Amino acid sequence: MSKPLNVALLGCGAVGTDVVRLLIEHADDLAARIGAPLELAGIAVRRPEKVRDVPVDKSLFTADGKGLVTKEGIDLVIEVIGGIEPARSLILAAFENGASVVTANKALLAEDGGTLFAAAEKHGVDLYFEAAVGGAIPLVRPLRESLAGDKVHKVLGIVNGTTNYILDKMDSYGASYTEALDEATALGYAEPDPTADVEGFDAAAKAAILASLAFHTRVLASDVHREGITDVTATDVASAKAMGCVVKLLAIAELSEDNRVGVRVHPAMIPRSHPLASVREAYNAVFVESAAAGQLMFYGQGAGGAPTASAVLGDLVTVARNRVQGIRGIGESTYAQLEVHPMGDTRTRYHVSLDVDDKAGVLAAVADVFAQHDVSIQTVRQEGRGEDAQLVIVTHEAADAALSATVDDLRELDIVRDVSSLMRVEGE
Amino acid sequence: MSKPLNVALLGCGAVGTDVVRLLIEHADDLAARIGAPLELAGIAVRRPEKVRDVPVDKSLFTADGKGLVTKEGIDLVIEVIGGIEPARSLILAAFENGASVVTANKALLAEDGGTLFAAAEKHGVDLYFEAAVGGAIPLVRPLRESLAGDKVHKVLGIVNGTTNYILDKMDSYGASYTEALDEATALGYAEPDPTADVEGFDAAAKAAILASLAFHTRVLASDVHREGITDVTATDVASAKAMGCVVKLLAIAELSEDNRVGVRVHPAMIPRSHPLASVREAYNAVFVESAAAGQLMFYGQGAGGAPTASAVLGDLVTVARNRVQGIRGIGESTYAQLEVHPMGDTRTRYHVSLDVDDKAGVLAAVADVFAQHDVSIQTVRQEGRGEDAQLVIVTHEAADAALSATVDDLRELDIVRDVSSLMRVEGE
Repeated sequence: MSKPLNVALLGCGAVGTDVVRLLIEHADDLAARIGAPLELAGIAVRRPEKVRDVPVDKSLFTADGKGLVTKEGIDLVIEVIGGIEPARSLILAAFENGASVVTANKALLAEDGGTLFAAAEKHGVDLYFEAAVGGAIPLVRPLRESLAGDKVHKVLGIVNGTTNYILDKMDSYGASYTEALDEATALGYAEPDPTADVEGFDAAAKAAILASLAFHTRVLASDVHREGITDVTATDVASAKAMGCVVKLLAIAELSEDNRVGVRVHPAMIPRSHPLASVREAYNAVFVESAAAGQLMFYGQGAGGAPTASAVLGDLVTVARNRVQGIRGIGESTYAQLEVHPMGDTRTRYHVSLDVDDKAGVLAAVADVFAQHDVSIQTVRQEGRGEDAQLVIVTHEAADAALSATVDDLRELDIVRDVSSLMRVEGE
Repeated sequence: MSKPLNVALLGCGAVGTDVVRLLIEHADDLAARIGAPLELAGIAVRRPEKVRDVPVDKSLFTADGKGLVTKEGIDLVIEVIGGIEPARSLILAAFENGASVVTANKALLAEDGGTLFAAAEKHGVDLYFEAAVGGAIPLVRPLRESLAGDKVHKVLGIVNGTTNYILDKMDSYGASYTEALDEATALGYAEPDPTADVEGFDAAAKAAILASLAFHTRVLASDVHREGITDVTATDVASAKAMGCVVKLLAIAELSEDNRVGVRVHPAMIPRSHPLASVREAYNAVFVESAAAGQLMFYGQGAGGAPTASAVLGDLVTVARNRVQGIRGIGESTYAQLEVHPMGDTRTRYHVSLDVDDKAGVLAAVADVFAQHDVSIQTVRQEGRGEDAQLVIVTHEAADAALSATVDDLRELDIVRDVSSLMRVEGE
């Protein structure tokens, strides 16, 4: 057994609290697995005087994060504050001090991961981040390591539990978006300000991280095409049902035929037979398609204190073991540096429901608009009569720009009263 | 870029062929990820003169496996021969020669893993084996590393594709075991001699490996209680259906309340709502329950040349990278060395269908037998009348020994004509 390793914890919210609990509960197992005991050297929080349900000496709490991470002898720093600052400065200071860092901070990684990885490299220390995507689900390690001998084509995931909960309730009860959001808020699945979740910012940061790992290319959150779920209506969900589909907020990273990368987050209809369709409540799951391994799926709890803490501690064991052995784990892999293409170039399919005039020639006029944009129609269904006449159209795959221009032109047609539902179709 | 690493391949069947193909196709990517190019130094096969669809120089083939792995300058050895010998001797000779080894050999690991891990340790080299369980599905790495900071309670998996294919067909078409096996054989899912699969030997080896990883305890195939699927009847499958269940061959490793380990492979009924129930065809999936992470599931192709080769190459990248850095990855973790308890101590539930005489007092007599063994009944259903009178009983959880003794005593009852279906119930 080597000498103890000193651990500094930054942040003590839900995740931090569970990290402390597990560090104490599993102390003996952790020491055996690492080859050295871990010693908690301090916990940096905004309000050290606050009463917390954490079984450690109060003297460990400090408001001085900088002082903590730059203290002599700190080996490992766990960052679970979240957000850009002060997390970034503290992580950089920790590297400077020779410590390895485990973080759950997707926003920071997706905004400025390059700076962090470069600093870790420079100081010869580790930066691990399994908890940043998919909570407890091992995703980062499989993508970075298990699939390192394979070629990943596509990553398709449900990576935000809040939105999955909302969409699941809309699907199960026919609830409206607002009703489902209220329920999610009441149950604590949604924050009082749900913007980061429902507008897709959280999923976009995770999509950027997954794309970076899958394609060995630095992808930033700003590279990700992002649409949230606030415009998803009960009608959309019902239309999906009628097609044997379910609406999910998907994070998609894929390689195009010309070897560019497309990364996007948007609601989409997927067939109920797709493994992702049965991901209920606030669960997450990520589907990976690669050349040799074929289809893989990883499923589990994507958020919550204990699941996220489990991922943090898994990383902590690895970086601590590296430390004991005097080595570094793998760093950032961006050797491929593929180009990220704009959303318009993405090959996708649309489902469009149109409220139309009930008269002869309507279908011909609508079909003509699709033809003008070289978009091929897979199925058309006419529903209702008179005032309620509807055309439900599903296209074949086409460039998103062409599909979107088609819909713009359809809106201009006199015979089209309204586009009552518009959504991409994935997973076939 | 470091100097090239020399790779020796042992075996060139379905997996070996795909390993060679991927080594060539992805050569540049692999070199970038490793930091050094890989060079194929030789391929040991039984018949070097055989014509093979492998795009390499014929001079690379040799019948002298020992000569190949002990050649000067061999850095990495890939073992995909399978079976105990000569695989074991060759791997030990490779270690002796200072090479790291990647293997897909579940039988050898489950029989004599301790010898191999000790030899790797002694010579300061790596032994990686992701491909030994679950084919392409990353399982070994998540259990060894991602969950290293957590406490795993239970691993529940479908780890044999052949038997899952057979049971899936029995469930879908009401096929008999023999019909479904014939179909599996015709499609190449079952070997001409299917014993290793249908008798559960393959699954038992994988269960032993999963248990070792999950509980940091050396578990051998001989520690695993093993029952195959050859006795599963169309009646069993129909009984499962009537209960809203499906029959699967499960590999189960779990921690008992007294901190002992139970490992078993047997067919069992699981509810259709369980994520494992929807694993169709020859797919594999493993469900993991841990204290902090909660429920995780890993799904993908459990066998086949390309998927298994993907797992082999993922490991190869890791051990090659370790080599470039002059370090070792993690070795065996058996610090806990928990006791493995016998099957009789396992807490489980039984589903029993009895053909009984149709007369008063039958249920009372049957219930009395359960009571004598302290086994509590959850549900009883009486079906049919006269000659076809049936009792369908599902128990609460009890020690397997008590359940099995109960069934033995039921068979002795005059009023019980036959036990027409008997199966454990899991996953609730």
